[in-house]
Amino acid sequence: MTNRQKPVRLVVVGSLALDTVETPFERRVDLLGGSVSYACAAASFFTKTGMVAVAGKDFPRKCLEQYRRFGIDLAGLSLVEGKTFRWSGVYEANMNDRRTLSTHLNVFASFTPELPSAYRTAPFFLLGNIVPDLQLHVLRQARKPLFVVADTMDLWINTARKALMKVIARVHMLTLNDSEARLLTGEYNLRKCAAAILKMGPRYLVIKKGEHGALLFSREGLFIVPAFPVDSVKDPTGAGDSFAGGFLGVLAAGDTVTEHRVRTALLHGSVVASFGVQDFSLDALKRLTRADIHRRFAGLKKMMTA
Amino acid sequence: MTNRQKPVRLVVVGSLALDTVETPFERRVDLLGGSVSYACAAASFFTKTGMVAVAGKDFPRKCLEQYRRFGIDLAGLSLVEGKTFRWSGVYEANMNDRRTLSTHLNVFASFTPELPSAYRTAPFFLLGNIVPDLQLHVLRQARKPLFVVADTMDLWINTARKALMKVIARVHMLTLNDSEARLLTGEYNLRKCAAAILKMGPRYLVIKKGEHGALLFSREGLFIVPAFPVDSVKDPTGAGDSFAGGFLGVLAAGDTVTEHRVRTALLHGSVVASFGVQDFSLDALKRLTRADIHRRFAGLKKMMTA
Repeated sequence: MTNRQKPVRLVVVGSLALDTVETPFERRVDLLGGSVSYACAAASFFTKTGMVAVAGKDFPRKCLEQYRRFGIDLAGLSLVEGKTFRWSGVYEANMNDRRTLSTHLNVFASFTPELPSAYRTAPFFLLGNIVPDLQLHVLRQARKPLFVVADTMDLWINTARKALMKVIARVHMLTLNDSEARLLTGEYNLRKCAAAILKMGPRYLVIKKGEHGALLFSREGLFIVPAFPVDSVKDPTGAGDSFAGGFLGVLAAGDTVTEHRVRTALLHGSVVASFGVQDFSLDALKRLTRADIHRRFAGLKKMMTA
Repeated sequence: MTNRQKPVRLVVVGSLALDTVETPFERRVDLLGGSVSYACAAASFFTKTGMVAVAGKDFPRKCLEQYRRFGIDLAGLSLVEGKTFRWSGVYEANMNDRRTLSTHLNVFASFTPELPSAYRTAPFFLLGNIVPDLQLHVLRQARKPLFVVADTMDLWINTARKALMKVIARVHMLTLNDSEARLLTGEYNLRKCAAAILKMGPRYLVIKKGEHGALLFSREGLFIVPAFPVDSVKDPTGAGDSFAGGFLGVLAAGDTVTEHRVRTALLHGSVVASFGVQDFSLDALKRLTRADIHRRFAGLKKMMTA
């Protein structure tokens, strides 16, 4: 059985976009982006991954070709009348703070994620940062999910808190960044944020801190996930999605979810994300091999060992 | 031999101040502070530590009593005519960013660090953040230093770069924070900063990132020093000094300096600093025991282990 024929173990639902990215050094137009692109590409190194997303009829063939080269299953990708979601943003000199210049949802505005029947029995799900009601819609279609991760953002915390709370209560892991964790709980201290969020239902919580890594909270304790310090960052777009994708890819390659496996998988997510930011769009991931990932993973472990 | 009679193994030179600290929750006046207070108190848990500093005749007796209770050797503390250095600052709601409200150097303006003869043969030195020329003055008095750490700040990078470069070339380790590393090297990326600074002479470089921990760079590689995530921060003043003091205290308790010992000692520094910020001035350190430190150290190690 070739990789392409394997059943999908990880389903990723989220946004698919063509990004225009401006850094202090360069401006690049209509790059393949969106949370599903980064997360699926990252996960594809470790497990058979399928995407549920929507693109317009203008979506370039070469982008589909890119997905296929990663071995991503495209049964859940709808190509519909209209234009693909466009996003553009500009990064400050620190390559960390960014401003959104424009958001044209286009076909993404009427996206309703429908899972192909083969995806409904998949064990692992990543619910990318979309309207909580749509995340719930996906959850209702999943027949026997072993582990579901939901990502979210300030917009939904502010405008759709009720539906979001339902999502949080039903998933195994929530991921969000530090400012969002503060917004969701009204606490400033991250340990207090975490205690409050774990009470909302999920077994695991990952608070992302950008270039400073992430923190995993669970009822078993706390794990510090360092970012691998790279010597150049070309484009941080999608780093959080590559992190989540790499993490779930590694986790979905096995049949059990233990604290140890979650921790190891998160370190892999951190490593894949660190490669991703070294070039625009999926360019660095395209050149990547599993040997590269394992080498950097071993390096990261050494950086964590006294 | 009681602890008080042991020869001093670690000499700490730096500022001694009475701080007025304002946080979003509280304002406290004339707290015992300055780099020597925090660093010596932190180091005193692990090794016999002596301070070289100056205070005015107004320096409260109860502060001297505090130093003595930590077992700090005070042979190098001069009490001179005039007023003690006063600093005041206010912390933002995030308890991280702070603004200096006032600095009155007073007797610190004419401080010239002279080592008591017993200190000149000490093996370990921490040159706190003072004028580079005074750091050089201390270096000239040290007879057979095994390991010298220098701290510095943006002011000296901007106004005394030539003398600072001499200090950097002569010490075993430099510590500074991320923005200072960028200012010193003109590089933004921290790995590039580190490569440039290691070329200036020191064997080790520690880049401090506040609540995000620190990075150790050496010719042997990189070590990620996490901050221990505490559930409340009352006053972050002096955290960097407690970190350096705790680190050097542990290192100075042994006779060799190896990569492994440096890494372990840095984790101890991180742990002591995490206690320090949980109360004002030295109040949390006063209540601390070695058992508390070992317990939190073990906890931190677990948070770093997949």
